[in-house]
Amino acid sequence: MNSSANSTMPIANRTVFFVSDGTGITAETFGHSVLTQFDMKFKQVRLPFIDTLDKAHEAVRKINEAFEKEGARPIVFSTLVKTDLAKVIFASKGMHMDLIQTFVSPLEQELGVKSTHTIGRSHNVADTEEYKNRIEAINFSLAHDDGQSDKNLSTADVILVGVSRSGKTPTSLYLAMQYGIKAANYPLIPEDFERGKLPSCLPAYKHKLFGLSILPERLSEIRNERRPGSKYASLENCRYEVNEAEALMRKEGIRWLSSTAKSIEEISTTILQEIKADVRIY
Amino acid sequence: MNSSANSTMPIANRTVFFVSDGTGITAETFGHSVLTQFDMKFKQVRLPFIDTLDKAHEAVRKINEAFEKEGARPIVFSTLVKTDLAKVIFASKGMHMDLIQTFVSPLEQELGVKSTHTIGRSHNVADTEEYKNRIEAINFSLAHDDGQSDKNLSTADVILVGVSRSGKTPTSLYLAMQYGIKAANYPLIPEDFERGKLPSCLPAYKHKLFGLSILPERLSEIRNERRPGSKYASLENCRYEVNEAEALMRKEGIRWLSSTAKSIEEISTTILQEIKADVRIY
Repeated sequence: MNSSANSTMPIANRTVFFVSDGTGITAETFGHSVLTQFDMKFKQVRLPFIDTLDKAHEAVRKINEAFEKEGARPIVFSTLVKTDLAKVIFASKGMHMDLIQTFVSPLEQELGVKSTHTIGRSHNVADTEEYKNRIEAINFSLAHDDGQSDKNLSTADVILVGVSRSGKTPTSLYLAMQYGIKAANYPLIPEDFERGKLPSCLPAYKHKLFGLSILPERLSEIRNERRPGSKYASLENCRYEVNEAEALMRKEGIRWLSSTAKSIEEISTTILQEIKADVRIY
Repeated sequence: MNSSANSTMPIANRTVFFVSDGTGITAETFGHSVLTQFDMKFKQVRLPFIDTLDKAHEAVRKINEAFEKEGARPIVFSTLVKTDLAKVIFASKGMHMDLIQTFVSPLEQELGVKSTHTIGRSHNVADTEEYKNRIEAINFSLAHDDGQSDKNLSTADVILVGVSRSGKTPTSLYLAMQYGIKAANYPLIPEDFERGKLPSCLPAYKHKLFGLSILPERLSEIRNERRPGSKYASLENCRYEVNEAEALMRKEGIRWLSSTAKSIEEISTTILQEIKADVRIY
């Protein structure tokens, strides 16, 4: 749910609506992806759970109100599964782009089967195996955050290592939440560098290790936000730790990437490719 | 990234590809949303970071290989920003559905401006204010998980309360990660029920409280996975705790929802509506 808008961009005098009969998460991801191609900011309104004709008419009222106020067509990104709800929404004064209505019908033709027209399926999955795996992975990643536990490391899909504040925790949680990947993480600390060895529970799982490194300058910035003026945050100490961590990872043959200018989404996607988790059936 | 496929569905003899010049997260969300309208499972392959002509030709090779093997057109969901890369991919033997190529050009016309054709913008945002807020929110939610800390509760956007294992932790993390919402969570425990009062740090923030409840039968199931046969997991105890928690929330005027059959995405979307975080500018 990101956008690359920054504070210097002009604000468009247009409201953007995300309309869905489910959570609206897909409509929003879809809309953001299209909107980020424009150097503008937009006022954005989420209208989730539009699953009755009454709610659809109420949504149309809001869209038309924005049209009257702004004198320009609101932009409407939607994922509407039911044709009757879609018809009501499409009659508004907005400019309509709908994911389901645009792509499901050509796919029905291609596959030679009818679609189910079931509402809210992408994010209404609390009873599926995949959803349970995601929740289990979140619990696993929390229990194995920051080297808290070395129990059950054999069931981890990946174990992230790196210096403190290199991005291990948010990446582990993202991998778990988004992909159901059981991601543990272990800090590399000065004691490890002095011994010149990985924490003792890790060598047995070397094939699961993946390193995050970071530019010392950026690391120092991040650590200074937490503990301003500390030795821990000093550029000199950050240089020492990053050098030692990279030397250790090189010596142990651990793959790593630099998290410096990367979002947790980009780091996670790269890790998925490395651990060959990019082919799935479901 | 969910799908509602279950183990009884037929597996289609078709490979689905998600192709993107960025992380592929949008392409995958988009594709899943369309595919969940069909009662089939698909083999799914993620091809992220396709940002050069060489990589595009390599992607085409993989798509054509699947075509040769399966004798049917692979389904290709893509988000390709650069026209030259899109042209190469579209020449494959797959069936192509591209979010950007389909919707950006009508939007250029509507807005009367050209798009930027910048790659990977939705999830390549490590330097934006919004991204920093998300990372800060994740750290906040972790530090305030399960009543660990009552420091800085004044800066929380929402404080979830409910009995142990009602879904507070994954929901807090999802709100933080996806929306940059600072979500603390506090368990309601037997000591609170005996006193008939909320934990002492909470009444000052009553307007930020949001409750999760759950059917005792489901709660007992979840707890039995963690601590089989314990009093904690017994149906009798779960009934007691849920009744008491609901009575306490009713007495204190706290809004709540039942998490029983809901995914963390659905719970989070409902909470966003309640705390009026569904209108944003960026």
